Amino acid sequence: MTQQATKLVIVTEKLLLKKIVQIIDEVGATGYTVVPAGGKGSRNLPSSGQPTVSSDNFSNIKFEVLTPNRDMAVKISDEVAAQFFDDYSGIAYLCDVMEILHAHSF
Amino acid sequence: MTQQATKLVIVTEKLLLKKIVQIIDEVGATGYTVVPAGGKGSRNLPSSGQPTVSSDNFSNIKFEVLTPNRDMAVKISDEVAAQFFDDYSGIAYLCDVMEILHAHSF
Amino acid sequence: MTQQATKLVIVTEKLLLKKIVQIIDEVGATGYTVVPAGGKGSRNLPSSGQPTVSSDNFSNIKFEVLTPNRDMAVKISDEVAAQFFDDYSGIAYLCDVMEILHAHSF
Repeated sequence: MTQQATKLVIVTEKLLLKKIVQIIDEVGATGYTVVPAGGKGSRNLPSSGQPTVSSDNFSNIKFEVLTPNRDMAVKISDEVAAQFFDDYSGIAYLCDVMEILHAHSF
Repeated sequence: MTQQATKLVIVTEKLLLKKIVQIIDEVGATGYTVVPAGGKGSRNLPSSGQPTVSSDNFSNIKFEVLTPNRDMAVKISDEVAAQFFDDYSGIAYLCDVMEILHAHSF
Repeated sequence: MTQQATKLVIVTEKLLLKKIVQIIDEVGATGYTVVPAGGKGSRNLPSSGQPTVSSDNFSNIKFEVLTPNRDMAVKISDEVAAQFFDDYSGIAYLCDVMEILHAHSF
């Protein structure tokens, strides 16, 4: 089952979790992983009531989505950025995955 | 201490944590990192009592194991998949690590 | 906003969180992500009161710092290792980021 893939990483605010899951589903990725995250950006907009994100509480989330090609990853990222990155802090980037060794139901 | 490495990533169900740690130890990797994870696969088997894994609770775990070469990573992955991926959802993939800069007791 | 970056990953003990954040800020990275982590190294020093780090509680932290170039990543890593890796377990390594797609305030 060896195959290459692109990994899309999105770190953004926790309250967007469900909306981003919906975008991932709609674009057609078959699975994703999400982990709690803290961190710091330089956002100063009071859009979510906090000037910056503290690293002590985990009020961010980090998505990792394996996609079969770059196009699908970019489509998800573009949609997330268009809908949310004017108002919320976030970053989206791509990493190479060398090979998927085994996958069951992901 | 600059050296290259392969990073094995395994995302699977939390209840397998101890058994996977044992496999990692037995194959001979010197350390690993594990983070709580949520996510969605397409698993519909009721093997752990849940139809799919919710992204709101973190009932999955994500392992990252740095190995000195691809062979050790594949050996761990093969063993984990053979023992568990028929019955539990999971994915295993490899990423390149450019260089290990510093390591103390990992 | 397509650009390449280097991702510095540091996994170490949770009690160092604030001090590492300070180093990241001082070296000049504009943001970072931190996630709770467990794991195992081979540390046997009782420096933080525990012989080894359990994978069941998340007493470690994993930093990911995107930097515009390798130099900045190495500078952060060198400083963290010089200050802490004699006394605390930790690992620092670099991964390639293919491209940053979108970034708002990170």
